[in-house]
Amino acid sequence: MAGVCVIGLGLIGGSLLRAAAASGHETWGATASPVDMCAAHDAGYHVESTEAALRRAADRDALVVLAVPLTALREPLSAVAELAPRCRLTDVISVKRPVADAVRRIAPSTRYVGGHPMAGRAASGWVAGSETLFHQAAWVVAVEDDTDPETWRDVAALALDCGAHVVPAGPDEHDTAVARISHLPHVLAAVLAAVGADGGPLAWELAAGSFRDATRVAATRPELVQAMCEGNRRALLPAIDDALGRLGAARGSLASSGSLAATIRTGHDGRVSLDNHRPAERQRITIDVTTPAALARLRAYGDHGGRLVGLEGTRAMIEVDPAAPSVDDH
Amino acid sequence: MAGVCVIGLGLIGGSLLRAAAASGHETWGATASPVDMCAAHDAGYHVESTEAALRRAADRDALVVLAVPLTALREPLSAVAELAPRCRLTDVISVKRPVADAVRRIAPSTRYVGGHPMAGRAASGWVAGSETLFHQAAWVVAVEDDTDPETWRDVAALALDCGAHVVPAGPDEHDTAVARISHLPHVLAAVLAAVGADGGPLAWELAAGSFRDATRVAATRPELVQAMCEGNRRALLPAIDDALGRLGAARGSLASSGSLAATIRTGHDGRVSLDNHRPAERQRITIDVTTPAALARLRAYGDHGGRLVGLEGTRAMIEVDPAAPSVDDH
Repeated sequence: MAGVCVIGLGLIGGSLLRAAAASGHETWGATASPVDMCAAHDAGYHVESTEAALRRAADRDALVVLAVPLTALREPLSAVAELAPRCRLTDVISVKRPVADAVRRIAPSTRYVGGHPMAGRAASGWVAGSETLFHQAAWVVAVEDDTDPETWRDVAALALDCGAHVVPAGPDEHDTAVARISHLPHVLAAVLAAVGADGGPLAWELAAGSFRDATRVAATRPELVQAMCEGNRRALLPAIDDALGRLGAARGSLASSGSLAATIRTGHDGRVSLDNHRPAERQRITIDVTTPAALARLRAYGDHGGRLVGLEGTRAMIEVDPAAPSVDDH
Repeated sequence: MAGVCVIGLGLIGGSLLRAAAASGHETWGATASPVDMCAAHDAGYHVESTEAALRRAADRDALVVLAVPLTALREPLSAVAELAPRCRLTDVISVKRPVADAVRRIAPSTRYVGGHPMAGRAASGWVAGSETLFHQAAWVVAVEDDTDPETWRDVAALALDCGAHVVPAGPDEHDTAVARISHLPHVLAAVLAAVGADGGPLAWELAAGSFRDATRVAATRPELVQAMCEGNRRALLPAIDDALGRLGAARGSLASSGSLAATIRTGHDGRVSLDNHRPAERQRITIDVTTPAALARLRAYGDHGGRLVGLEGTRAMIEVDPAAPSVDDH
């Protein structure tokens, strides 16, 4: 790779700049936030204007990473279209379909491959970031029918260099999955915190670890949570409907027969399946990610819980559950 | 106090027996579980049959603690009515109104004061218990109009001796509060775990700390969760309705205007109010808990987030929020 240019130096972008630099990439960055810019500069990183950073990226055929909120995407994306229109481009935004659509509309000639590292914390900004934020995290690298395999490889390599493992997924499959395991939890935490608060001081005096754990993410900055959840509206609505249906069924069963057996049992089975999801024995498969059929296979591996844990040149090492269906059936 | 007799030696009863013994009480216990009985005996505690334990309690005017699930209450309560009909009696069950009603029906001449330590863990049985389980925990000691002040004092003293602080509350107020901060969280965790599981292997591969925290309690033994939640049906139904209403409103707002602002903001404010609930400056008040007006005052303090942190004879030391309304207004 010929350098990594990071636009946006908050928690995620700032951590990515640090991690990419630490793993030996030439890096530079830009941000609209003077606070983040000065903090990155004082920490010894190369920061400049967005315009200068993108011109440099175009000159060197660098990988450009957009690390801005979805609601602030238009401006830097327009700058990319103007200053580095054919660059290799990725992002770290928590939804993938809306970003892919925006790229097609605003910067259609870039070689775009979407990304989403599943890492975060309640605090935000450059100061909250860390070189090790992505260690052991899942990092989705999106696969579409027209994805450029070479760029896909480069984005996957960056994620691995940052200490993450790579989960290949289609943008719609990604958005549906994160609606269930990330955005719905934020909505339910908000609902639960509000119901608890209605209980007044006595409820707060009795609230123990289970309530604090269940509402922890409600302490995150509301603007960030709102932008993240609203940006995935298409996939979040069915997830909320699923939760509403299940909660309504629990209510009906408790009111009529006094039983919560089905609700509690199904939830317990679900949680146990999460804990047992990663089997001790993982099969390792090696494929060349630049062959014509590779991307479809990668996507199928991702659907079945597979993940990419190493790259040598164009050969990817993939860990899969030996009990999962063969992807050759697809 | 002339001894503490614990019926039921699982996680809570077993921890209570250990903690009471460690603080200098003479203790003995009984349990229907041979596994728990042998484990307690091997650990050097005095265990015997329920009949022998209750006869001993009657002889010595001991405090009897019922530490059995609500669904298993009838049998030991009938034994109390037969063998120690006038004893001082408390319990550690997670609902208070149903237990109070059962005591009135089955053992009406006991001096009963309900209790509920807000402590637990996912594992169960004597082996999961610990002398320090109640350290820093809230322990509700119930106040009713006909509560015997001397017994109330004894139960509060036992809770303090176990390392907890005491929250005075009416049984209905207790049940309403725990429905919001303990039982609803279990129902929502079950719902969320089920929605996540529907997302298949890709969802599980992407599930991070926030999902694991939000569904942690769904790993608890389903029979225990079910008994706890179903036992508080009267108060849990309105709490579920509150959650259903809020989640439905979020769904409607997201679908129609695309906004989750009100949901996320209200949840954030609620969670922040929990974190700020215990002010750095607490006022200390001392009252004699055996005076005629004391119990009503204690209950009012509890309603406003007050808690009892020490006892000397009949004088209780109570920490209150200086900003809370004066209880003399009640």
